[in-house]
Amino acid sequence: MKHRDNLIRHVRITPIAFRDGPLLNASGIHEPWALRAIVEIETSDGRVGLGETYGDEPMLRALETAKPLLQGLSPFDLNEMEQRVRAAFKPAAAAALNAGAVEFTLAPGSHTAKNAAKVTSAFEVAMLDLQGQLLNAPVVDLLGGAVRKAVPYSAYLFYKFAEHIEKPYAPDAWGEGLSPEQMVAQARRMVELYGFQSIKVKGGVFEPAHEIATMRALREAFPKHPLRLDPNANWSLETCIQAAEELDELLEYYEDPTPTLEGMTVLAKHCKSPLATNMVVTTMEEFRRNVELGRGVRIVLSDHHYWGGLRATQALGRMCEVFDLGLSMHSNSHLGISLMAMTHVAAAVPNVSHACDTHYPWQEEEVIAGGRIAFEDGAVAVPGKPGLGVELDRAALARLHEQYLSCGVRNRDDLKQMRKYQPDFSGKSPRF
Amino acid sequence: MKHRDNLIRHVRITPIAFRDGPLLNASGIHEPWALRAIVEIETSDGRVGLGETYGDEPMLRALETAKPLLQGLSPFDLNEMEQRVRAAFKPAAAAALNAGAVEFTLAPGSHTAKNAAKVTSAFEVAMLDLQGQLLNAPVVDLLGGAVRKAVPYSAYLFYKFAEHIEKPYAPDAWGEGLSPEQMVAQARRMVELYGFQSIKVKGGVFEPAHEIATMRALREAFPKHPLRLDPNANWSLETCIQAAEELDELLEYYEDPTPTLEGMTVLAKHCKSPLATNMVVTTMEEFRRNVELGRGVRIVLSDHHYWGGLRATQALGRMCEVFDLGLSMHSNSHLGISLMAMTHVAAAVPNVSHACDTHYPWQEEEVIAGGRIAFEDGAVAVPGKPGLGVELDRAALARLHEQYLSCGVRNRDDLKQMRKYQPDFSGKSPRF
Repeated sequence: MKHRDNLIRHVRITPIAFRDGPLLNASGIHEPWALRAIVEIETSDGRVGLGETYGDEPMLRALETAKPLLQGLSPFDLNEMEQRVRAAFKPAAAAALNAGAVEFTLAPGSHTAKNAAKVTSAFEVAMLDLQGQLLNAPVVDLLGGAVRKAVPYSAYLFYKFAEHIEKPYAPDAWGEGLSPEQMVAQARRMVELYGFQSIKVKGGVFEPAHEIATMRALREAFPKHPLRLDPNANWSLETCIQAAEELDELLEYYEDPTPTLEGMTVLAKHCKSPLATNMVVTTMEEFRRNVELGRGVRIVLSDHHYWGGLRATQALGRMCEVFDLGLSMHSNSHLGISLMAMTHVAAAVPNVSHACDTHYPWQEEEVIAGGRIAFEDGAVAVPGKPGLGVELDRAALARLHEQYLSCGVRNRDDLKQMRKYQPDFSGKSPRF
Repeated sequence: MKHRDNLIRHVRITPIAFRDGPLLNASGIHEPWALRAIVEIETSDGRVGLGETYGDEPMLRALETAKPLLQGLSPFDLNEMEQRVRAAFKPAAAAALNAGAVEFTLAPGSHTAKNAAKVTSAFEVAMLDLQGQLLNAPVVDLLGGAVRKAVPYSAYLFYKFAEHIEKPYAPDAWGEGLSPEQMVAQARRMVELYGFQSIKVKGGVFEPAHEIATMRALREAFPKHPLRLDPNANWSLETCIQAAEELDELLEYYEDPTPTLEGMTVLAKHCKSPLATNMVVTTMEEFRRNVELGRGVRIVLSDHHYWGGLRATQALGRMCEVFDLGLSMHSNSHLGISLMAMTHVAAAVPNVSHACDTHYPWQEEEVIAGGRIAFEDGAVAVPGKPGLGVELDRAALARLHEQYLSCGVRNRDDLKQMRKYQPDFSGKSPRF
């Protein structure tokens, strides 16, 4: 078979660091450098398939461990690849591999228990990119074709400082975002620049009353935009229940207000807004548990990076349909390869019910040729080029890798970073 | 995009009838002619993609209704096709369409409530066949590649008469299969001819004691072959519970002994053998209900013809994994296009846990070029040719269509047929 003539010959994993804003969350504050890993899978004819994933050290170790598993496979061997990766990251194997790994609750992808799904996803995206190049078809067509021409994203607002402590580089253009008025200004700028038609606020930073005041100010300024608040699992169940009545009038969904699935299950009985999550339903096992507990969580914020890839995200879409759950997408700080992968899969999943989250507007740098991807009316057009439709800018890759080498960050640690501003910051969760 | 240059131009649905043995089941007996529909989807360059599905009148009407939905689509528009078909077969639309449809409990695919899934499947298989031809790739590679080189099937035994009443054609080579000894002889012949390594008996025909005696005789004759008994939902819950202790020693699984999911749920607490079904978990809604009832059914016998296609079967595979359920495949009387579709998808689903069922050995005729598909050691090799890897024998298609026109059967009716042998046959279920 001609399409199978090319076997996988090389796998390159390049950690990169890019500038990231002083964005506040429940755990603390973003460090000045965000990490990612760029995955390149090369076939015997020299074609390169691209993937983008987490760049923390446990993930880099996992990817290095998994590289040899691709030997002898064609880019079409997605099922066999997944089987091999699963076998290599069985709990026992993973325990030895991940000794000392940092578990970080804000980035579900950083859990080492998800290594099999994370590595599968990183490889799958690059292999699908290769398939598309070999077949001259966009990835979305390998997923059954697009049901929409563009994928809508939401304006993802963050409380933020004007500048990072220690001033590692010039401040970003967004200014301070602490008061409700400043958050409205941030929203106006983001909506003006990108055309987003939904607005999300990353909360869990200030007293609930302040965050609710922010939502009220946004509701007045944007009467027609669906609004979401994500208290980042930083509110006690009692606080969540108290806030529910006010928020019910304001929100399209109430995202991860409280830390446990059990808590979300109780809360669901006390609020009208549907509960959404990217923190308590992050694996197929947790999906099952949510079902068994009566589906307190009603909207799953999927993320192909840790759900096991684009095809697993499609399966998750079918499962959400079966169990009458809504579906949208979560994001961490990311660049254009991830944005394209998200766009291809979201275009192929009919029941994506809400605009997807993306941190993309908070990034200024890019690793792909042609620079930053454009949004139109808050949406990214589904590309028609072969594969993912993006190529590496190798000079940019080299520069971002140099930044990785020099920045000193190896594992995301928003708590440690926050203590530079506020030495007694507890990081305790839930704090409110 | 070159791969999208060819749009769907014609859809042909050809009903066919082929000889089928006098096989007994709970509802009665197979008629001398089994019906199928051959689906041909032709693109603007004259390529033809093949599908095979049910040939009963409601299904033929549904396919005819759905044909125009493919206008303007490329074979890569699987998701859009599914959306259109679902919209056309919403319950309200379906109710009008299917007035007078015959619901037939033995063939889950005959339920008109499944029209959207059935039509989606018929079109999807033909469109995947076209994709494979256009991309020069076998269908299995469009499903993520094979995790096994051949797909094992089981020897599917039936109690049977030596000959049809009214002798429409010469008797088959299998002879009578009524006593345990005759069933052992049938098994020996089937295992010798095809190499099957698991054995299934279609029961629900005789008193349970007779069928259990058959299983004991098979266990003695085939000490190492996993055995299954399918009482065809024809035993009361009480009978099932009484039989469970004896059967627990004999069976790899206990298939559809009793008619309802609620009954299966109770029975699960009284037997050690896992319960399998192709009768009470046949849709995503029933899948959900089985989960909600505590997973009394532990093995889902999937069937791409009514689960919504090959990709839906893959999603079902992932769902079975999530909910810790086994997975295998059900079949109705079918020819080689269906066998190839089953083989491609079963090769791509890692967690197929048991050899798949097939009626194929009971058929003598074929509609594909090259004639009957070969089994080796009870398995069908996954083809490497583009698409499904089969082509129509147009002379055979014409002949089988002529048989359809002349045979007089339009809707499968095993009960009516049985009353030709036994006028007072009640067809009541459960009878034992």
